[in-house]
Amino acid sequence: MSDARNGQTVHTYAAAGVDHDARARFIERIAPIARSTHRPEVLSGVGPFGGMFQLGGYRQPVLVSSTDSVGTKVKIAALLDRFEGIGVDLVNQSVDDILTSGAEPLFFLDYMASSTLTADQKTAMVEGVARACRDAGCALIGGETADMPDVYAEGDLDFVGFVVGAVERDAIIDGSAIRAGDALLALPSSGLHTNGYSLVRRIFGVGIGGDPAADRAVLERTHNDLGRTLGEALLEPHRSYVQQVRAVQPKLKGITHITGGGLIDNVPRMLPDGLGARIDRAAWTVPPLFDLIAREGNVEEREMFHTFNMGLGLVVAVAPEDVDAVRAELPEAFVCGEVVADAEQQVRLWEER
Amino acid sequence: MSDARNGQTVHTYAAAGVDHDARARFIERIAPIARSTHRPEVLSGVGPFGGMFQLGGYRQPVLVSSTDSVGTKVKIAALLDRFEGIGVDLVNQSVDDILTSGAEPLFFLDYMASSTLTADQKTAMVEGVARACRDAGCALIGGETADMPDVYAEGDLDFVGFVVGAVERDAIIDGSAIRAGDALLALPSSGLHTNGYSLVRRIFGVGIGGDPAADRAVLERTHNDLGRTLGEALLEPHRSYVQQVRAVQPKLKGITHITGGGLIDNVPRMLPDGLGARIDRAAWTVPPLFDLIAREGNVEEREMFHTFNMGLGLVVAVAPEDVDAVRAELPEAFVCGEVVADAEQQVRLWEER
Repeated sequence: MSDARNGQTVHTYAAAGVDHDARARFIERIAPIARSTHRPEVLSGVGPFGGMFQLGGYRQPVLVSSTDSVGTKVKIAALLDRFEGIGVDLVNQSVDDILTSGAEPLFFLDYMASSTLTADQKTAMVEGVARACRDAGCALIGGETADMPDVYAEGDLDFVGFVVGAVERDAIIDGSAIRAGDALLALPSSGLHTNGYSLVRRIFGVGIGGDPAADRAVLERTHNDLGRTLGEALLEPHRSYVQQVRAVQPKLKGITHITGGGLIDNVPRMLPDGLGARIDRAAWTVPPLFDLIAREGNVEEREMFHTFNMGLGLVVAVAPEDVDAVRAELPEAFVCGEVVADAEQQVRLWEER
Repeated sequence: MSDARNGQTVHTYAAAGVDHDARARFIERIAPIARSTHRPEVLSGVGPFGGMFQLGGYRQPVLVSSTDSVGTKVKIAALLDRFEGIGVDLVNQSVDDILTSGAEPLFFLDYMASSTLTADQKTAMVEGVARACRDAGCALIGGETADMPDVYAEGDLDFVGFVVGAVERDAIIDGSAIRAGDALLALPSSGLHTNGYSLVRRIFGVGIGGDPAADRAVLERTHNDLGRTLGEALLEPHRSYVQQVRAVQPKLKGITHITGGGLIDNVPRMLPDGLGARIDRAAWTVPPLFDLIAREGNVEEREMFHTFNMGLGLVVAVAPEDVDAVRAELPEAFVCGEVVADAEQQVRLWEER
């Protein structure tokens, strides 16, 4: 923590866990990765105080922004030393968040904080961010890498993203046109996305302060019903729905992103007052990862639907007469329920067909 | 962590440290605080997936954005249970960052993550954020409060901010007009702002894993040269220069914010190639807090200037003939040095007058 010189303790910032030169080298290393995501509107690269983006091409632009971290999925990534996927998670959860109002993602910034992550591990995270940004057409224009000795224990980290998108004022999707009788269509999730990891870690006993080698053994075990290891299934990155939704956007009356709180909390977020939803449990097969979690943790069904996405990543509301047209453009989409009159705006899980 | 029911372990998300209902109550509590910051351009409140801001009034708007945390200043705030000030820090460091290119702050989002913070503590942080947002004319339009059991130890947290501002394309301040012979004017800092806390904590032995009661005793000791306790001096919030700079903005050729890396790293960030800076050490009295740190930590002068702001929060470059006009508008500003030809873009500390 300090150098001894002439018998006195001489404090330096590097010795306190914050190394300016290593930081400068890291910024140099990630700059070309960030540049690979740039659009013509970007006026500056990574490094200055602020990223710059010249907004053009909108008549009445509404900026839509969102921030979130990938939560404790970082614990699984750190245990398995696989960091690129959480970079993809970080971007896709954010672009899907602002997609709910119909916004096109414009630019992204990330914040990563840790005390012991290596430059290789941090670079892998940035590479994942950049890959997902390119896929979403979103420019990575800034970020911050914080060294936080004494806040983060060895191997711990937090990873936060910020996205800004834009939508024309008269094209905002706000759910106000949704009526009872509208169909709810779902697009499949790729896994847990970024929700429910604190519960999953407790159920499987990993990343809760135990022996990392034992934790890794649990994560590296192959489960027949998953067809892969538990760790691989848990690290599957969050999907982006940006490209798919763009093709059918004018036909969507409402879009909701199934994040923390599952279908139970997120479907009502797009519904006007006085409407609820009936979700047809038999409309899709819940992926085996969720069954495994429910079984191992003895988690009740309602709690599962209140915590996890249960296989549905995005749910959209569509007029009945538009269902076929939307499904023609989005072959993955399927009817998972319908909008119903409900003063309490509840989501009911409906078993009968 | 789980309820026993019928002899079986039934896992719930609340028991895993993530409580949906407490979260909903917290969002309800902070919503009016956030609304107190809103401008007419804000289309939605806190709570939905994305905050919305309708951009208007610009011909060729360039969006300028920045993200950062308050670093390990959170350790001092947590030890003293004083959280509102770090909310002010979070906003002011960000609006000062984008002010360097001349941008007006438009909106702000915050991310706070912890495992054991109370709703009162989190609300105090949001109140600080909202106060500074109102002062800067910036709308708090979103945020995320993450419960991260197993990542954050008891009392630990991270607190990250994200600002978006705008500037007309032809009014961007980029330093390109700076010439050798231009004057460097400084505006005083209010304290350490948010930089150098990992070094300071080591020097005074606080927030590095020791006994919190002993740490508090160190922070609560009054130092005669500070005229207050060490903790009060260390928690002094970051100043905003937004209102002051606006009055003289057209006369400023370059603006730099003295953040991590001090004058040594930050003055060159605004300078064109081939120019450096000579800083007149005798132009101002370094505030006693920095002297105390240097003395207690036996920190060399160059390292002090490479880590701390040394009393200067913002440095601007001005043509010699504009110095008087700028000082007439900003009585606090003083000449702290000048721009010089220097192929290596160094900052030299100059003792003689």
